[in-house]
Amino acid sequence: MPTLWNKGLQDRWLAFFIFYFYFYFMRIVTLLSDFGNTHYVSEMKAVIYKLCDYASVVDITHKIEKFNVLHGAFILKRSYSYFPKNTVHVAVVDPGVGGERKGIVIKTNNYYFVGPDNGLLSLAAKEDGIRQIVEIENKKYFLENVSATFHGRDIFAPVAAYIARGVDISKFGRSIVEYESIELKASISGDKIIGHVVDVDDFGNLITNIPFSIIEQAGISKVSLKNKELRILKTFCEARAGEMFAYKGSAGTLEIGVNKGSAKEMLDIGIGEKIWLKY
Amino acid sequence: MPTLWNKGLQDRWLAFFIFYFYFYFMRIVTLLSDFGNTHYVSEMKAVIYKLCDYASVVDITHKIEKFNVLHGAFILKRSYSYFPKNTVHVAVVDPGVGGERKGIVIKTNNYYFVGPDNGLLSLAAKEDGIRQIVEIENKKYFLENVSATFHGRDIFAPVAAYIARGVDISKFGRSIVEYESIELKASISGDKIIGHVVDVDDFGNLITNIPFSIIEQAGISKVSLKNKELRILKTFCEARAGEMFAYKGSAGTLEIGVNKGSAKEMLDIGIGEKIWLKY
Amino acid sequence: MPTLWNKGLQDRWLAFFIFYFYFYFMRIVTLLSDFGNTHYVSEMKAVIYKLCDYASVVDITHKIEKFNVLHGAFILKRSYSYFPKNTVHVAVVDPGVGGERKGIVIKTNNYYFVGPDNGLLSLAAKEDGIRQIVEIENKKYFLENVSATFHGRDIFAPVAAYIARGVDISKFGRSIVEYESIELKASISGDKIIGHVVDVDDFGNLITNIPFSIIEQAGISKVSLKNKELRILKTFCEARAGEMFAYKGSAGTLEIGVNKGSAKEMLDIGIGEKIWLKY
Repeated sequence: MPTLWNKGLQDRWLAFFIFYFYFYFMRIVTLLSDFGNTHYVSEMKAVIYKLCDYASVVDITHKIEKFNVLHGAFILKRSYSYFPKNTVHVAVVDPGVGGERKGIVIKTNNYYFVGPDNGLLSLAAKEDGIRQIVEIENKKYFLENVSATFHGRDIFAPVAAYIARGVDISKFGRSIVEYESIELKASISGDKIIGHVVDVDDFGNLITNIPFSIIEQAGISKVSLKNKELRILKTFCEARAGEMFAYKGSAGTLEIGVNKGSAKEMLDIGIGEKIWLKY
Repeated sequence: MPTLWNKGLQDRWLAFFIFYFYFYFMRIVTLLSDFGNTHYVSEMKAVIYKLCDYASVVDITHKIEKFNVLHGAFILKRSYSYFPKNTVHVAVVDPGVGGERKGIVIKTNNYYFVGPDNGLLSLAAKEDGIRQIVEIENKKYFLENVSATFHGRDIFAPVAAYIARGVDISKFGRSIVEYESIELKASISGDKIIGHVVDVDDFGNLITNIPFSIIEQAGISKVSLKNKELRILKTFCEARAGEMFAYKGSAGTLEIGVNKGSAKEMLDIGIGEKIWLKY
Repeated sequence: MPTLWNKGLQDRWLAFFIFYFYFYFMRIVTLLSDFGNTHYVSEMKAVIYKLCDYASVVDITHKIEKFNVLHGAFILKRSYSYFPKNTVHVAVVDPGVGGERKGIVIKTNNYYFVGPDNGLLSLAAKEDGIRQIVEIENKKYFLENVSATFHGRDIFAPVAAYIARGVDISKFGRSIVEYESIELKASISGDKIIGHVVDVDDFGNLITNIPFSIIEQAGISKVSLKNKELRILKTFCEARAGEMFAYKGSAGTLEIGVNKGSAKEMLDIGIGEKIWLKY
């Protein structure tokens, strides 16, 4: 494979030019929603590409549980920071669309977040450090006809495209201070760790919001859940086939899985449910 | 964020160059099919990228009901115009693949459409204004080995890539005038509005082909469907939880939904079915 | 549509520049997994874009049957060669993640393959011709924190991004010769053709690993499977509605389908099962 520098001065100039190009123009816009993988998503993409053809649109997921703002907020929080600086994250889990809830843009230390003001953006934005929040009001940046049921396409997608084009977020409306925020922290009480299931993945693993550091600091090697005792293991292959166990998940929190099986089916626990772990 | 012009002449030249670049080369190719999100889709993408690496391939949806040409035609019609001018739309819902049906390219006022001549492209193409229809015959533009069951990958994908590369569509075959067309219009008869369900979205909302303007012109505030009376509301949050109601959908047509529920499950109506609304 | 050469010398220079640009920089990275279309996939994409923003990431499929390495290996084999030369294929079906199994990079005549050393890459790599296999060991090319359960994001994605950036694969670790390989060939025994179902598509068609050339050479026009006699036809429209039949699939192997129906449901056969065809 040719390397960048093997042809001398000409190539160095070319490389400089191209990095310069990307520094100025490359911008990723991500989408997260509860739409399923349908044409609703592609209409949002179309709007973004029409307004900003040098954007690159990447799906985070569209399989958020319908109307489950908590679920969306947690997935956004676990995924946003893997993307390059200045990525514009658009999230739409929006049971209140067309009603009183505001649309907002949040500028954080490294990213932009666009979506409804219902807490969906709050976990990720707070973690990254909020710099400015703007209420989306300026119709100049909307599609011409705004439907009452699909602000993702008609408001959030074009606003995200304008951000990718370099429009200052102050142009979209006035700065605000108050915004809807989700608070949901794991806690320890006596010999119990109390947390929530914040995601169930496609394998049936239960992802909790309990930081695994709690387990490590307490030096625990077993927990019990619904009277089932679970070993705390490092990997799936340490477990016996069919064994339910707890482990440190890829988001740094406690997860519950079954080797070659589904914890979701064995426990019948869904997203948003509280769990008590004895240790 | 740096803006385009803040460094003087050098940047102006750069900006000119880049817009020029995009004007010439950037081309979106969309895909719509009933394949599901499988490797069939990615093989089509691979063929397009191999022939035209400056194309950008975007999925509209691959969840069209199997073999349901009507469903595909309506989704294509509602989504195509959000994409930038000159986008190449490839659609494959193709129960007759390998048989007598032709493959066609339609050039309209703003777009290109590629797919089987079974009506799938007709609703979108007619709306945008047809300029030329070509029957795909020239094997020079096919993959070397054409399978009998997957013209999406072996014929339509490479043809779309060549269009994106700037090949004139007359090269693919001779111009034709007759083509398969879908006719399916909503109508009013007495106190009844008659239409069809043309899509059911992931939330279970029923999307009809009844233009909402009919409702607005008639000044109706209620309709009844299967002896259930439905209020006509603006947004989901106006409805009581569990209430079924009618509203103006994001495609400008009448939709039937249930606040925090599924109209599809409550009514047991599928795509393509006729509905009568009394008012 | 403007063609490339219609403005004389200036454009020729521009075209030269752009082809040069692509020759050097454009690189496709594909992803195949059993994750479902979830945020696990998008975290892998995010890592790749963060390290190599001129890469273009394309999903092959994420609907590989959970933990079914054989299924993944066959889908990779049928799809990889449609992509442009030098594409980096990342595949993750990885029941042994975090355990003893190695991570490997295989350089073949035209492509790069990255994934676990459990046979997943072997069918595609062998077909294209293996040049070098490297065990992934050099932590310099991993994410800073490597989880025990998600090497796709923490090891394979960054390694793929570095390959796309032009890093020589020898940098990742030492070359090895032995690797896990899947052997699964169709055979003829007496009047029976013995093969395996290697995929079931979204239509319910059963895709086997039996090369259709066997059928052609034997001049067979009928086979029987589970005491059902199947005609061998060219296309779906030759079959009666509801008829089960055999045909040459788009991967060049024998497939079993039902016109406007599902062979999977009628036969109750799954991926990996052996089938005997009498002729």
